[in-house]
Amino acid sequence: MTGDLLIRSVRPWPSGLGTAEVDVLCLAGRVASAGPDLEAPRGVAEVDGKGGVLLPSFTDAHAHLDSTRLGLPFRPHTAGVGLAELIDNDRRNWRSAEQDVAARATYTLGRTIAAGATFVRSHAQVDVDSGLERLEGVLAAKEAHAGRASVQVVAFPQCGILRDKGTAELLEAALLAGADLVGGLDPAGYDRDPVKHLDIVFGLADKHQRGVDVHLHDAGSLGAFQVELICERVAALDMRGDVTISHCFALSTVEEDRRRQLVDMLAENDVAVTTVAPGVREPLPLRQLRWEGVRLGLGQDGMRDYWSPYGTADMLDRTWQLAYRNGFRDDSLVEMCVDIATRGGASVLGETGHGVTEGAQADLVVVPGDSVTAAVMDRAPRTLVVHQGVLVAADGELLP
Amino acid sequence: MTGDLLIRSVRPWPSGLGTAEVDVLCLAGRVASAGPDLEAPRGVAEVDGKGGVLLPSFTDAHAHLDSTRLGLPFRPHTAGVGLAELIDNDRRNWRSAEQDVAARATYTLGRTIAAGATFVRSHAQVDVDSGLERLEGVLAAKEAHAGRASVQVVAFPQCGILRDKGTAELLEAALLAGADLVGGLDPAGYDRDPVKHLDIVFGLADKHQRGVDVHLHDAGSLGAFQVELICERVAALDMRGDVTISHCFALSTVEEDRRRQLVDMLAENDVAVTTVAPGVREPLPLRQLRWEGVRLGLGQDGMRDYWSPYGTADMLDRTWQLAYRNGFRDDSLVEMCVDIATRGGASVLGETGHGVTEGAQADLVVVPGDSVTAAVMDRAPRTLVVHQGVLVAADGELLP
Repeated sequence: MTGDLLIRSVRPWPSGLGTAEVDVLCLAGRVASAGPDLEAPRGVAEVDGKGGVLLPSFTDAHAHLDSTRLGLPFRPHTAGVGLAELIDNDRRNWRSAEQDVAARATYTLGRTIAAGATFVRSHAQVDVDSGLERLEGVLAAKEAHAGRASVQVVAFPQCGILRDKGTAELLEAALLAGADLVGGLDPAGYDRDPVKHLDIVFGLADKHQRGVDVHLHDAGSLGAFQVELICERVAALDMRGDVTISHCFALSTVEEDRRRQLVDMLAENDVAVTTVAPGVREPLPLRQLRWEGVRLGLGQDGMRDYWSPYGTADMLDRTWQLAYRNGFRDDSLVEMCVDIATRGGASVLGETGHGVTEGAQADLVVVPGDSVTAAVMDRAPRTLVVHQGVLVAADGELLP
Repeated sequence: MTGDLLIRSVRPWPSGLGTAEVDVLCLAGRVASAGPDLEAPRGVAEVDGKGGVLLPSFTDAHAHLDSTRLGLPFRPHTAGVGLAELIDNDRRNWRSAEQDVAARATYTLGRTIAAGATFVRSHAQVDVDSGLERLEGVLAAKEAHAGRASVQVVAFPQCGILRDKGTAELLEAALLAGADLVGGLDPAGYDRDPVKHLDIVFGLADKHQRGVDVHLHDAGSLGAFQVELICERVAALDMRGDVTISHCFALSTVEEDRRRQLVDMLAENDVAVTTVAPGVREPLPLRQLRWEGVRLGLGQDGMRDYWSPYGTADMLDRTWQLAYRNGFRDDSLVEMCVDIATRGGASVLGETGHGVTEGAQADLVVVPGDSVTAAVMDRAPRTLVVHQGVLVAADGELLP
């Protein structure tokens, strides 16, 4: 039956099973049982985990599949400094890519899955120049990999809503065309009117009963003010659990007292946060956010695109990056990064039951390594990737 | 003849040859000529660069080969917080490693070379507990790879000189046993008497005519003060060109005016600086240091040892880390990181002529990639590694 699979010789994490190798049986897409030398029910396929660590699959909670150039000839970086210049550089160049958005997004999503992520939230730029073209490309990639990963798509007003007249209507059209969430972008710093911007975003979300995911690079007190504006709308519209703030640099650029207020506010309104582990910006207060119960995910951001040459579509690479950038050496802290990159991100996407536990949806990844920390340091190709009990990739390669 | 080699189909960088593929001929260990379809002189072996980028070989300007556990079973991190605890944790555990220092250092140095570094400066801990045991292990690794890389060894007083009575005598014994340079460690912050500590270090260097490489984690004005103390001794003993400050966090933790003073002082006294691109500490002012002519190198630091789980023995990984941590997106800045990791580090080691130019010592590495930046982002296994015109590694594997 679809979703039946016996995974031999793996060491599940996190688990109360100790560090010995066991077999894990998936039935009808769910984790059914685990133990030494399980007998395969008749007709159930077996795969060899080769003694690797079995983790919940990764979640890329913040991707930009519509801009990726992974797999294409490398292109020198041509953008100047600052957000506006990065936006304009992308606008000047994306149409001349060697492949269309659908082909590029499909390739990169495939690599993302082959590297062990089976939950993905991708933004897709919606603006008056490109209309829904980029969104449609990402939706095509989602469709192409429908049996391999659960993908959410955010209609993302990368050029602003108020600055780019006509975008509000396009965002609504995007929701009708298949986008799952409404996005936003620096309502104050970039779009110049935080209240009007957020009222449009939350108005659309409320009208169509969708979630919200806002890019908030604005830092310091201006960023903090917008965290408040977002939380006020979440409370007023009863959207607890449906809203994410991406980047949220405000959290690492205000004083500790103010930060504590913000974290409390996020927790109270069940607003999630995602980070991409940037190299220069101060890291988010990961432990504080988790301690207070804020759902927290990790994402790839853009991948070798018109914005940046970085990004490999490998969430284990990005997990290493999160650990390194935070200076974590203790195994428990490196493991916390893995938890953020797997179950944490899934909870941002609303998949609250993700994990290696009986009854959980069987979205799993097997990684070679003496321990979880060793696996993060080595970043070896994934032995197996499983989505809903179906083997979707092996030895780093996507299966047909 | 030894050191004769014809490398087919590579794109040299940096070079005035453009981006077309050429062949590069090495004769008697030096770069002799480059051009399309070179004819191989009789008896000269040919190797295929497969169209990759040809770089000057990497320089690991700051390694700790005596503590590495790469290749051994992964060991959870057991150290508490702070430098003293890290030192003590290493002391408590290093003797129980599954292999002796020589075997571990030899393995990791081999991996370092296979990843394209043919110039290496490694510290070797000298203290009253281990005596010269760790130094001898690193010297054995140097000897084992004598035909594959040029290795310098620093007699490094990891436990202090004044705190660890008897270390001064051991440092001198280390120099007589084959160490190339005298090391030092936080003369104020750790060893508690900067003048006495530095007088011992520079006294030994002067007496034995060796270079100096001091670990200086001390930050802010205390670190800056010690930069001055070091430069004063360099000037007094006429040791320009022979002294390195490793880490030198002072440079990124003082005000801009003070920083400018320090950079000028380093330049004036030709004192080199190395960084390991740490994840949490503020990056060094790379462009300012280079602009002012300070020799600047990159190193691996410890590699999966009792100090930290990080480190892969791959200087291209570390180059990526330097670029990422500095937020560099422009190709020219990523290429600057490659220059720091190749020629910059070599200049720290006194190899001032390193590069892909006619007459230079033929220490070269071929990396797959559309461009230098792409090679840094992909970090694919090295196609070829050449030391003094001799092929020492291919396709990521060391040759016998």
